Amino acid sequence: MAEFFDLLRTRRSIRDFEDKEVPLDLVLKIIRESCLAPSAQNGQPWRFIIVNNKEWIKRLSDESKKNLLAYLRENPDAPIKKYEAVLRDKHFNVFYNAPCLVYFVGSKKIRTLQVDCALAACYFMFSTAERGLGTCWVGLGMNIEDPEVLEHIGMPMDYRIVAPVILGYPKNIPKPPERTEPKILKIVS
Amino acid sequence: MAEFFDLLRTRRSIRDFEDKEVPLDLVLKIIRESCLAPSAQNGQPWRFIIVNNKEWIKRLSDESKKNLLAYLRENPDAPIKKYEAVLRDKHFNVFYNAPCLVYFVGSKKIRTLQVDCALAACYFMFSTAERGLGTCWVGLGMNIEDPEVLEHIGMPMDYRIVAPVILGYPKNIPKPPERTEPKILKIVS
Repeated sequence: MAEFFDLLRTRRSIRDFEDKEVPLDLVLKIIRESCLAPSAQNGQPWRFIIVNNKEWIKRLSDESKKNLLAYLRENPDAPIKKYEAVLRDKHFNVFYNAPCLVYFVGSKKIRTLQVDCALAACYFMFSTAERGLGTCWVGLGMNIEDPEVLEHIGMPMDYRIVAPVILGYPKNIPKPPERTEPKILKIVS
Repeated sequence: MAEFFDLLRTRRSIRDFEDKEVPLDLVLKIIRESCLAPSAQNGQPWRFIIVNNKEWIKRLSDESKKNLLAYLRENPDAPIKKYEAVLRDKHFNVFYNAPCLVYFVGSKKIRTLQVDCALAACYFMFSTAERGLGTCWVGLGMNIEDPEVLEHIGMPMDYRIVAPVILGYPKNIPKPPERTEPKILKIVS
């Protein structure tokens, strides 16, 4: 029984990758496993966009940074403020130069889209870790608005990005961040 | 390497439980493991309410059914329409008479609350399954509005329920529902 619990305890978000491509077949296999996640009314609303081109990943990073900075100008007190310096840094890639990016997306009409896609992304991250690869859910990478960019990546206009997940071979596996004690509001016995 | 992939493929949503309590210590242990999930900016915004009292679980089921039926009267074409008959059935318990219910909740102010809690719930469901117990994320069980009920379960007014997850010892493990082929919108190479 140890194996799964090892995975549970050791899976880390990875932000430092070897310069080595992830075979497309492997990405497709992991996506297929992600689709085993449960979904509301078995709706399986998740759709996928795979970007395994470093130039395009950089372009998506630049697009997201541009929109986040515009948002910050309108909302100077937003929590994202703490990222302002890195967002202004031209050399900072929100996707940490990962060789592959998978967007978990779906129709805006689906009320449960966020949680359904999050469950699929969780399956994806476990399955990837079990194979020795690393992932990171990059919240800063979802602000894609330019219609030309959206069209190029095959994103329908009535869809939204829920989870941008990067993957690759980890160069460096960080220590786990601190966890606070679970906060149980009440036990109704 | 087989073990995790077995779990990935065989974990099912369980809606039929033995009449056997889940030890509170075990629930607390699994909640602690759920907190190993990643969260946006390591915010760990998840909070937990444990209900291991069957009368209260029934009361929460009744409260949720009442509010869903009220919603249906206002929105007669809502997708939830297909559940109208069971929601009107006084004997139907949305929590399937499970011995234990855990609400994953958190502050409405947290923009990433839904996906953060969904990831913790995913960890919870895997960890529970690995121990031979069963879970089901019960979307029909989150419509709790009565202030007295909310107060009794320790739910702050500025919080929201993201995931009601039942758990118990499975009496019957169903076959997996059909999965559609993964829908890849585009591969940007």
